[in-house]
Amino acid sequence: MTTISMMTDFGIKDGNVGVMKGVIWGICPEAHIADLSHVVGAQNIAEAALILFRSAPYFPKGTIHLVVVDPGVGTARRPMAARIGASFYVGPDNGIITMLLDRAAQQDQPCEFVELAEPKYRLPVVSHVFHGRDIFAPATGHLASGVPLREFGPSFNDPVRIELPKPIRTSSALRGEVVHIDHFGNVASNIRVEDMQAALTEKAHVRVRLGGAEIKGLVDTFGERPVGELVALFGSTGNLIVSVVNGSAAERLGSKVGDPFEALL
Amino acid sequence: MTTISMMTDFGIKDGNVGVMKGVIWGICPEAHIADLSHVVGAQNIAEAALILFRSAPYFPKGTIHLVVVDPGVGTARRPMAARIGASFYVGPDNGIITMLLDRAAQQDQPCEFVELAEPKYRLPVVSHVFHGRDIFAPATGHLASGVPLREFGPSFNDPVRIELPKPIRTSSALRGEVVHIDHFGNVASNIRVEDMQAALTEKAHVRVRLGGAEIKGLVDTFGERPVGELVALFGSTGNLIVSVVNGSAAERLGSKVGDPFEALL
Amino acid sequence: MTTISMMTDFGIKDGNVGVMKGVIWGICPEAHIADLSHVVGAQNIAEAALILFRSAPYFPKGTIHLVVVDPGVGTARRPMAARIGASFYVGPDNGIITMLLDRAAQQDQPCEFVELAEPKYRLPVVSHVFHGRDIFAPATGHLASGVPLREFGPSFNDPVRIELPKPIRTSSALRGEVVHIDHFGNVASNIRVEDMQAALTEKAHVRVRLGGAEIKGLVDTFGERPVGELVALFGSTGNLIVSVVNGSAAERLGSKVGDPFEALL
Repeated sequence: MTTISMMTDFGIKDGNVGVMKGVIWGICPEAHIADLSHVVGAQNIAEAALILFRSAPYFPKGTIHLVVVDPGVGTARRPMAARIGASFYVGPDNGIITMLLDRAAQQDQPCEFVELAEPKYRLPVVSHVFHGRDIFAPATGHLASGVPLREFGPSFNDPVRIELPKPIRTSSALRGEVVHIDHFGNVASNIRVEDMQAALTEKAHVRVRLGGAEIKGLVDTFGERPVGELVALFGSTGNLIVSVVNGSAAERLGSKVGDPFEALL
Repeated sequence: MTTISMMTDFGIKDGNVGVMKGVIWGICPEAHIADLSHVVGAQNIAEAALILFRSAPYFPKGTIHLVVVDPGVGTARRPMAARIGASFYVGPDNGIITMLLDRAAQQDQPCEFVELAEPKYRLPVVSHVFHGRDIFAPATGHLASGVPLREFGPSFNDPVRIELPKPIRTSSALRGEVVHIDHFGNVASNIRVEDMQAALTEKAHVRVRLGGAEIKGLVDTFGERPVGELVALFGSTGNLIVSVVNGSAAERLGSKVGDPFEALL
Repeated sequence: MTTISMMTDFGIKDGNVGVMKGVIWGICPEAHIADLSHVVGAQNIAEAALILFRSAPYFPKGTIHLVVVDPGVGTARRPMAARIGASFYVGPDNGIITMLLDRAAQQDQPCEFVELAEPKYRLPVVSHVFHGRDIFAPATGHLASGVPLREFGPSFNDPVRIELPKPIRTSSALRGEVVHIDHFGNVASNIRVEDMQAALTEKAHVRVRLGGAEIKGLVDTFGERPVGELVALFGSTGNLIVSVVNGSAAERLGSKVGDPFEALL
């Protein structure tokens, strides 16, 4: 039984996500489909890339990640399927998998990319504006049914990559930025636990600066401090975050994606 | 393995959609359920009818479309199940399937309607206010398990129909109206590709008027024009729409459902 | 095929609900998962408790209710699994099941509680901030796969209970309060049909007071009165509610959770 994760910027009111599931189940009735998010910001590839990067490792081997955040629908951008280590991606070739590819390279995992060109794995009529339904959902269904990757079209080796902001290291600090604000108002930076190994032996001395506030020391979890207090800690996927215990740090500090986020070591 | 599509105006916060799935899986554990939308406007039968009409053709044969948008819950309106060509509808008899019935008639597909009267295919206690849970979900579960349509109750031949706005044709124009605004702010009219066959050989000459703007020519897809430009094109299900490339036409033009939408041929 | 219901306060945009499904399906590929709600108010245990109480009876026997509304994540609060009659609960030990336990006691159904302590039923790395993914989803998957409850850790007999507001009975009235406002704006009280048995023979004489309005008589369903009229009735799970026919009572009366809600008998 294949698991499929699904992410789009289609919203939840128009029925388009449901239609894609209908297409998939028409081809592969036994697939399980988990919605990751359908309220990714419109055409926001960087946000989708981040959610996919954080989520993919927790899915079973062989999972197909179907992501349709597609500002280029109907243009020459390639529709693609990819094997990335033990899992698969189906969607437009627009850089959403950049971080997955970086991680696969670090872990010496093989990757493989094909263009979704074969007409028999598309719907009979392909619209100019809804490739999620007409190209990507059918490809996902056939891949879940066991069609080998190479059957979908010609392979290629130059998937599009996007430039993701990396923190700048100075002698005493890491200067990063806000990359995600979650439902609770936790503010996540692009500073990762791997970037701060040395500092972690002295957590009490780290200071974090965000939106005019300076937080002294890192905690391990929210429960160490009273409700309403501003804390800095590593989130569940290893990014340095600022939170308010049982509250919203984004609201307290007026944070938004792209704001400077600094760790003084 | 039967596929069920599900649409309601129940919203996503109260648990009522989940409860209906619980009832269905208690009767037919192997069914797959795809949510179409649960944020249809409260009691908005026309909106649900449009979403169902656009979505249904992409689901596998035998799919049961369970739709509960039910301003008449607890009144004498008939609870019904229907076979419409190769698929099924379960829900109140309030006109939601009008366009599906028109399409089935055009395609000479047989239809069949029964009232959900048989107590053994309802929950033991039927409330006055939540027939989705007490009548429609159990009927869907039993239908998915293979109970024949005629077992549910007496058949009838006069399902309720709703009047849907049709465009008016003059010598030089089609005068339609806005029937849907999607998550991206694309503004869809009731003017369909079939209504404009003659004009389609000269796409560059068609002009579209909406909200004080006049758009010259139709494009095939968003990518033909720069980001931010207002374009007119046929949407993925054949309706004439106005969009802003990677933006919101509804916001730009202040559009709402019911506004005049005109095509000059 | 085991059914799982899932409720969190995680929202729908960050992918965290999907990640938990990925973890579950990695362990138990054949489980069905119904979302109850993921927009429970942040850390609002009382709201989650109410939704679970109303929903659980409609799920099949053996259903596992996975609920992660967890203000104490990362503190000493116990992670738990419970058998409550014929169904199961997995989540933090924070009182969400209080009403389920009361109902089980009334119906003489056996209950059993264990702490989720066994490392082999957790993810290999357990974060401090996302026990939904690292502890509760894996436990749910293993429980759905048939691992007996006692394998997860030591049993205990003192689950946390929360104090839920109960209506006060005077000689002529029940003084309750608003406990839920649903998507349609129906305002639900904690006054239950069981509390008013005597009055129900004379429904026309009952008066309901909410937000400055007094409603005379109870109806059985919305359809008895014209659109726009304020009505009082028993909701689909037996709570006394105030509604506007095809409208929003909460908006009309400015109601919020905690407001006084009175029935004069």
